[in-house]
Amino acid sequence: MKSLWLESQSLSLRDVPRPSKPGEALIRVRLAGICGTDLELVRGYYPFTGIPGHEFVGEVIESPDPSWIGQRVVGEINAVCGECEQCKNGRPTHCEKRTVLGIVNRDGVHAEYTTLPLANLHLVPDSVPDEAAVFTEPLAAALEIQQQVHIQPTDRVLLIGAGRLGQLIAQTLALTGCDLRVVARHPLQKQLLAGRRIKPISEGEVQPRRWDVVVEATGSPSGFDLARRALRPRGTLALKSTYRGEMTIAWSPFVVDEITIVGSRCGPFEPALSLMERKEVDPTVLIAKRFPLAAGLEAYETASQPGMLKVLLEP
Amino acid sequence: MKSLWLESQSLSLRDVPRPSKPGEALIRVRLAGICGTDLELVRGYYPFTGIPGHEFVGEVIESPDPSWIGQRVVGEINAVCGECEQCKNGRPTHCEKRTVLGIVNRDGVHAEYTTLPLANLHLVPDSVPDEAAVFTEPLAAALEIQQQVHIQPTDRVLLIGAGRLGQLIAQTLALTGCDLRVVARHPLQKQLLAGRRIKPISEGEVQPRRWDVVVEATGSPSGFDLARRALRPRGTLALKSTYRGEMTIAWSPFVVDEITIVGSRCGPFEPALSLMERKEVDPTVLIAKRFPLAAGLEAYETASQPGMLKVLLEP
Repeated sequence: MKSLWLESQSLSLRDVPRPSKPGEALIRVRLAGICGTDLELVRGYYPFTGIPGHEFVGEVIESPDPSWIGQRVVGEINAVCGECEQCKNGRPTHCEKRTVLGIVNRDGVHAEYTTLPLANLHLVPDSVPDEAAVFTEPLAAALEIQQQVHIQPTDRVLLIGAGRLGQLIAQTLALTGCDLRVVARHPLQKQLLAGRRIKPISEGEVQPRRWDVVVEATGSPSGFDLARRALRPRGTLALKSTYRGEMTIAWSPFVVDEITIVGSRCGPFEPALSLMERKEVDPTVLIAKRFPLAAGLEAYETASQPGMLKVLLEP
Repeated sequence: MKSLWLESQSLSLRDVPRPSKPGEALIRVRLAGICGTDLELVRGYYPFTGIPGHEFVGEVIESPDPSWIGQRVVGEINAVCGECEQCKNGRPTHCEKRTVLGIVNRDGVHAEYTTLPLANLHLVPDSVPDEAAVFTEPLAAALEIQQQVHIQPTDRVLLIGAGRLGQLIAQTLALTGCDLRVVARHPLQKQLLAGRRIKPISEGEVQPRRWDVVVEATGSPSGFDLARRALRPRGTLALKSTYRGEMTIAWSPFVVDEITIVGSRCGPFEPALSLMERKEVDPTVLIAKRFPLAAGLEAYETASQPGMLKVLLEP
């Protein structure tokens, strides 16, 4: 089958055997997304060799349980052991032996086919088109914030970053009724927010020590610093991006102001599908370009342009 | 009156006028404690000029409300405006205009007399002796952890640091029934823990990625690093010490493991007094030495010895 292949920070098109794993479903990829993590993998942020990509919607072709065959599905990206301490304590996304689709020890979805355990699959409701379903994984990651932090309707919430993930976070946070403002840099980002009546705020307008909850979604030290200054005492900082390398910060202000910091990663798929089914969120406005898999290298290049929104791959 | 006086990182004995503030109670200090923050002030960690000290028990001598006169009291250390956004939102200890007893713009208790607003005072139950009541402020600070973090009886809790504050934290955490282990370095610290059947653990024995809650009470980068390694995914790190200057850390593991970090400072006085009244905690075991106020310089020197527990001053 055709696939993208990452090796030693070099991406190429490659013909590889169609995958097959005992006990797992074989899935034909219908549509896949390129995410910031994929771009970081190419830059060598994490070591990974194989087929990248973890955002997808597909159709089950083969399955140990035949009732799945022909179903349109999305899939959770952490394939877990079910037996370690994390799995047994209800934290499967933190499984100590997990493989992660297109990220850790498991080929991903920037290919014609992929495999996943049946336990990872979720049926896509008929009313959710492929163009929306392909966003299930990042939309779930956005919802993880509300899984971890109680956003009250009376909270002042500042979101820093309005890129691919930031826009989904903005759409989901807006549903809480909170007083949400979003720091966006690019005109297109602001336009998308305006389309959903979500209010932007410039960095200079962010009042210091005012915000109950700040979500940092830029992964940059300057974003972290702005978040720190914006938070009120006893406020909560949700970190929604990983940070390259190390950061040097003064810790005492966090203790003196009794700030809570919450790291946030993968989230729940079913609520994400439910919100799309009920049209409460619309991720399709994020789609910037679509490329056939054969033009995958160009697609990655396009996706890495500053301010670029979602680039999709069609195998 | 006799007092200690701190100026330009130099501590001296000084005769100063007896304090008087309109609307505040005049309190004769019966007993005062020397705390890590006092020692940091002398080292120039924060700028402060005046009388240091914030841990005390005293007797009200003069008061705008005469019913307080003759009462034995302890006092909250943050004197607040009652009008700023923090005060109006139930966070008086974070008042934007606060003065802090012996720490920020307010003379402290290492003197014969001090003053505080009536709103800061708490009556000491008759059954709580001065030697216990003098620990109300740090005991309240220990309880602030449970004010912020829900410690479940089934949690594995690791406390790093068993000094002055650490011992009080250990005593209060043990009351939750959680599986508590304490990293203590000095033999006397271990002995005190053993006296309350609280189990010590050596740094080498701390299993990585195992602990639900870690309380860091050393204020050292090595303590922070141990805490990081000990926490399980989605665990909670309570920071109970300020850290001098800046620390350089890798942030991504906190995001990937979805760790929650909570800064923790001043706590509630009434539960602290209540626990002492009911003999559920006994801070008096921490008393290492008592000095008359006139020997205050020697007292500070003694208090700054490594592993030293509580040094008290008698005006």
